Amino acid sequence: MELPVQGEKSQITELVGTTVLDTIGLVIPNVDVQLRARMDYLNDYRSIGILSSRTGAAGQINAIDEAVKRTNCEVLSIQLPRDTKGWGGHGNYIVIGAANEADAREAIALALSYTKYYAGELYISGEGHLELTYSAHAGEAIQKFFHAPAGEAFGFVAGSPAAVGMVMADTCMKAGDVTLLRYMDADHGTSHTNEVILAFTGDASAVESAVRAARGVGLGLLSALGSEGIPVGKPYLI
Amino acid sequence: MELPVQGEKSQITELVGTTVLDTIGLVIPNVDVQLRARMDYLNDYRSIGILSSRTGAAGQINAIDEAVKRTNCEVLSIQLPRDTKGWGGHGNYIVIGAANEADAREAIALALSYTKYYAGELYISGEGHLELTYSAHAGEAIQKFFHAPAGEAFGFVAGSPAAVGMVMADTCMKAGDVTLLRYMDADHGTSHTNEVILAFTGDASAVESAVRAARGVGLGLLSALGSEGIPVGKPYLI
Amino acid sequence: MELPVQGEKSQITELVGTTVLDTIGLVIPNVDVQLRARMDYLNDYRSIGILSSRTGAAGQINAIDEAVKRTNCEVLSIQLPRDTKGWGGHGNYIVIGAANEADAREAIALALSYTKYYAGELYISGEGHLELTYSAHAGEAIQKFFHAPAGEAFGFVAGSPAAVGMVMADTCMKAGDVTLLRYMDADHGTSHTNEVILAFTGDASAVESAVRAARGVGLGLLSALGSEGIPVGKPYLI
Repeated sequence: MELPVQGEKSQITELVGTTVLDTIGLVIPNVDVQLRARMDYLNDYRSIGILSSRTGAAGQINAIDEAVKRTNCEVLSIQLPRDTKGWGGHGNYIVIGAANEADAREAIALALSYTKYYAGELYISGEGHLELTYSAHAGEAIQKFFHAPAGEAFGFVAGSPAAVGMVMADTCMKAGDVTLLRYMDADHGTSHTNEVILAFTGDASAVESAVRAARGVGLGLLSALGSEGIPVGKPYLI
Repeated sequence: MELPVQGEKSQITELVGTTVLDTIGLVIPNVDVQLRARMDYLNDYRSIGILSSRTGAAGQINAIDEAVKRTNCEVLSIQLPRDTKGWGGHGNYIVIGAANEADAREAIALALSYTKYYAGELYISGEGHLELTYSAHAGEAIQKFFHAPAGEAFGFVAGSPAAVGMVMADTCMKAGDVTLLRYMDADHGTSHTNEVILAFTGDASAVESAVRAARGVGLGLLSALGSEGIPVGKPYLI
Repeated sequence: MELPVQGEKSQITELVGTTVLDTIGLVIPNVDVQLRARMDYLNDYRSIGILSSRTGAAGQINAIDEAVKRTNCEVLSIQLPRDTKGWGGHGNYIVIGAANEADAREAIALALSYTKYYAGELYISGEGHLELTYSAHAGEAIQKFFHAPAGEAFGFVAGSPAAVGMVMADTCMKAGDVTLLRYMDADHGTSHTNEVILAFTGDASAVESAVRAARGVGLGLLSALGSEGIPVGKPYLI
C-alpha cells in the first residue's frame, strides 16, 4: 500500500497528507477548549484525527475502520455531507479521538492509504456513479455507522441515480444468503442524495459475491444511461 | 410521442429504458422479501416500477401521473433528492406498485415518454434554471405530492436561484384566479434546494396562463443573470 | 463602491440588479395576498426585497446587514440552500421587509454592492473553497442568524472539505481572545454542506486577526489539496 502524498507546499503542522477524491487528512494535537465544549461528539478527547473528502462515503468509512483496528484510536463522529462535486452522492467528514498526536497521525496516515485502495470500487460515469465496499471483518467504524455485527463480513452498495441503486440492492439480497442491515434513500438516512444504499452482512463469500453481483448490474445500468462507469482506482474485488 | 430508447448495450432484464435528464426507468418483478420488509412504502407490492433522474421533479411527477392514469398501477413513493448535476434543484426517485411485471413495465415506458415531453418546459442557463409543468387533470401522483384536488387543473413553477422563483410565484398568483396549493423553499418542503416552488390549481385556462406568465418573468430574470435559459426539449405551452 | 449591473435586457420591474456569485436582487412592492398568508416569515409586510445567490452565505448576510443598517428595512428570513454550483457549500435566499418599494429597492441595491465587496474573501480552488467574513459592528442580520451581540465585532470562517474548516476553526479560537458563537457542520446547522463553519465575536482587532489566521491555514490546506484558492473579488482583509 502506497503512503499518502505529503503536502510539500505546506508547512502546516496539522497536515498529514492528501489522496484521491479530494481527500485530506489532518490532526489537531490539542483542540481548543471552547470548541471542545461545543462539539459534544469529541467527548473528552484533546487529540483528534480528521479525514474528509469531497466524494465517497463507504470507502472512507472502511478506511477509517482499518486504521482504527491497527491503532489506539476511537471513532467519534462520521458525517456524510451532500457533495460528490456535482454528482448525486455524499462526501465525508470523519473525526477520531486519540491519546496523543502520534496515535492520531498514524491512524490518519493509514486511513489515507486505505482511502486510495478502496477508491478502486468507486465508479463514476457521465450520468451517475456506483460506490461499493467490502470488509471481511467489521470493526468499530462500520459497526457504529451501519450497525454491523462485530467481526463479521460487511458489504455496501450504492447507485445513483437512485433507481440504479434500488436494482443493485435487490440484486444483492437475491445473490445469496445475506442479511440486510440498512436501507437508505433520499428520505431515509442520507443527506438527500440521489442514491439507494444497502448495507448487509453474512458469510464472507456470500457478502463478497453479493457486492460483485450488484456491481455487474450497476455498471450495466450506468452504461445504458450513456457512458461507462470508470473506477477511481484499481478495482480490488476480482 | 416517441418511445424511450431501449438500453441496447444491456441485457439487464429490469431495464425499461432511458431518456433525457439522465432518467432511467426500471422494473423489479418480485422485490426481495427483506427489502420489502424494510421499505415500508412498498406496502405489500411485489412488482414495482421505478423512475429516477438526475435533474427534474415536477415534469417527472406529471409523467408518472399520466402513466398511472393509463395503467393499473399505484404511486407508492415520490422522493426528491438534492441533485440537478451541480445546479440548484432536485432530481427524483419515484416508485409505483403494480399487480404484475407487465403492468409496471407499461407504466414506466409511458412515464419515460412523458418525461421527454415534459422536459420541454425545463430551462437551464449558465446561472440558474426554471422548471414548469401543467396538467389539465390532476391524477394520483399530483394529488399525492402537491395536495391537488382530483381531476382539476394543476400548475407548478420553480425558479433558481430562489429569488427568481419568488418573483415567478408572485407573478403566478397575480396572473389570474388561481388557488395556492404549496409554497416551498430551502427551509420548507424541499431537500434544501436553491429554489422557490409554487403549486396551484384553478380554472384550466387561468392555471395555464399563470404558468406562462411565470415563465416569461423567469426567463427574463435568467437572462439578466447572464445567459438565456435553454429548454431541454420542445416547449409544450404555446 | 460600484453600483450593481442593471439587467439591461430585462424590463422586469422587480429587478434591482445582479452581481458576482450568480447573485440577483429583486423587489416585490405588494406581495400577493395568498402568498403572504402562506409565507409566515413575511409577517405583515407587503413590500419585500429579495437577495439570492448560487454561491456564498456569510458575505451576503454581511451585505444585507450593512444594507439594513443604512435603510428602513427589517430582516425577515435568511435561508442557506445547499448549492455553490457543484462545490461543497451554501447559496443564499434572503428576504427583507420594508414600508414601501423605494426602501426595499435602496436596501437591495446596497446589498448587491456589498455582496461584490465581501466576495473578495471567498476563495475557490479546484478541490474546495473557503469563505470568510468580518464585521466591526454586528447589525440585525448577523445578530439574527449567528446570535452575535449587537454592535460587537463579528468573524466567520468556513472551509471545505470539512476537515479544512475544522483546522481553520481551531486556528481561529487559538489566535486570540475571541468567544465562540456558533459551530456548524454537515449534521449541525448547515444544509448538509461539506464544511465546518465557525462564528465568533470579541475585540475588533482580535476578531480580525483570527479571521486572517484562519485564512492563512485554509489557503495552505487548499493548496496542499492540489490548487490555489482564488478570491472571487479583491480581498479586503489586508
